[in-house]
Amino acid sequence: MKLKDIGEFGFIKRIESDCLIREINVIRGIGDDCCVFKISGEMAILLTTDMLVEEVHFLLSAISPYELGRKSLAVNLSDIAAMGGTPKEAVISIAIPGTVDLTILDGVYQGMKSMAKEFSVNLLGGDTTSSPKHLVINIALVGEASEDEILCRSGARAGDVIFLTGQVGSSAAGLDLILKGREREGWEDLVEAHHNPHPHIKAGRIIAGMKIANALIDVSDGVAADLGHICTESKVGAILQEGMIPTTEKFRKYCEKFHEDSKHLSLHAGEDYVLLGTVGPESADHLRVALESGGCAFYQIGHVVAEPGLKLMTRNNSLENMAASGWDHFR
Amino acid sequence: MKLKDIGEFGFIKRIESDCLIREINVIRGIGDDCCVFKISGEMAILLTTDMLVEEVHFLLSAISPYELGRKSLAVNLSDIAAMGGTPKEAVISIAIPGTVDLTILDGVYQGMKSMAKEFSVNLLGGDTTSSPKHLVINIALVGEASEDEILCRSGARAGDVIFLTGQVGSSAAGLDLILKGREREGWEDLVEAHHNPHPHIKAGRIIAGMKIANALIDVSDGVAADLGHICTESKVGAILQEGMIPTTEKFRKYCEKFHEDSKHLSLHAGEDYVLLGTVGPESADHLRVALESGGCAFYQIGHVVAEPGLKLMTRNNSLENMAASGWDHFR
Repeated sequence: MKLKDIGEFGFIKRIESDCLIREINVIRGIGDDCCVFKISGEMAILLTTDMLVEEVHFLLSAISPYELGRKSLAVNLSDIAAMGGTPKEAVISIAIPGTVDLTILDGVYQGMKSMAKEFSVNLLGGDTTSSPKHLVINIALVGEASEDEILCRSGARAGDVIFLTGQVGSSAAGLDLILKGREREGWEDLVEAHHNPHPHIKAGRIIAGMKIANALIDVSDGVAADLGHICTESKVGAILQEGMIPTTEKFRKYCEKFHEDSKHLSLHAGEDYVLLGTVGPESADHLRVALESGGCAFYQIGHVVAEPGLKLMTRNNSLENMAASGWDHFR
Repeated sequence: MKLKDIGEFGFIKRIESDCLIREINVIRGIGDDCCVFKISGEMAILLTTDMLVEEVHFLLSAISPYELGRKSLAVNLSDIAAMGGTPKEAVISIAIPGTVDLTILDGVYQGMKSMAKEFSVNLLGGDTTSSPKHLVINIALVGEASEDEILCRSGARAGDVIFLTGQVGSSAAGLDLILKGREREGWEDLVEAHHNPHPHIKAGRIIAGMKIANALIDVSDGVAADLGHICTESKVGAILQEGMIPTTEKFRKYCEKFHEDSKHLSLHAGEDYVLLGTVGPESADHLRVALESGGCAFYQIGHVVAEPGLKLMTRNNSLENMAASGWDHFR
């Protein structure tokens, strides 16, 4: 069966099951001009949106439709995590070229629905359109947070400890392997890190709920670039310690075997979707214990300093300037 | 200056002025992982999203960048209008091919900002990415409405009067002219109707506030298709009167001069972005007076009937079946 056999409204009928994960406070779901819901007036509303474009963000020959669906929601969930919020309601826009089969689309929506269920997010509608050549998926996600818990990029202070809630570099190594056409066998963890990232909603909630962290962002552009965003918004600088950047053994083995630049992949490439934050040094241990008790991780990787700019203390203890560079869509 | 000269973050800096139209209740605008705002806990939240794809929804050779920007927000505003809501906060995703010049993008954002200002909507961020070939714009728009005022597609009842808040067909005639490469001179109104539609937010608010209408939708797919959506959701049918469908003199002249099918263009082609609703016959005059006093229009065009299906009473008083057909992206 082809998309053109069922038409736009047949397609909408086909995807609308299992989209309502949580009925409470949903007034109108799929099937009207807008979806309608309520959020407690006590809470601030978070809104984020992310677009994935074929050949820019993914290759249909490399990622499974199911993983693509999961990832398209995961990147939005990660933005809610980075503010310390709870994700709630999503709408999906999809532009579909005639070449994309209905079974691929079924897989994409199954992936989205599995991710939605995992994080108790409703899929409440969206927009479906044709596309002349490339598959494009855009999700807009609404979340909520207590106003006094929200964590912005702009709160970092000189003296703060810089931390990560997970290991970095694996996603970039997975992408590197895919783009260089290397055999996946033995490196499945790296490809998985790239195709099926796990948004750190729980870590974000723990960090926000404790009200001791000063700044938070998710690592989408890369540690250096995202730390650069925090430093720019907070008008501070930072020193990272290369030896403390957490990576997996598989990542290190990959870089060694193929002579890839582990510093570049772990610091200047993105899509790890772990959280990067800063916390006063007196509260760092308190935060570490809370995260670890909650099954999350806390890796101290450097310090915030008053002087603008990023610096890296290398493994052989030399201090070098580090560009806040990472992924840039237009350069 | 090219997009690649300023990079993704230079581009974001370039567009962020004049995005905050209304500061109240905005906690965080452009420049963080999410935008953050508040809506009174008394109000229900409306969320809608619409994607415009180059070569599907627009041709850069036919529409000005400014109009494209206005239209990309207008189609979302129209969805909020169709629920009787007030638009509030928007986020914009844009996928930009290397061939699109910075001056075009400046025009697009100027258009969005002018439309945002007209309707007091904040532009609070979004996502910018490259695109391999086509320009894609997705907007997600949050609005608010009193829960007891919200107008759905599902409330139409047999006996209801069917009404429009504006004339139809001009947008389709404008598109017809563009696609057939006809000279625009003398037909600027039609092209304008297609490129610069005016969302009926005010009419939607008047209709919702009176709490007497039973169903409401905006005419994006076409009168027949959108009335079909109301009938399907409401489990009713409808009879339209061809002689009462409001069109402009310019539209009628265009169809006459070029022998175009005015019935098809006014009933089965979309993008008029007027509102189509139903109201009990006892309340129709009351609603008409309220709309007209508010500077809006009310055109009675038919009746809701209990039997499913759409019928058209033609100009020569014969009753014929009418397909609920209009634009379908996949057929």
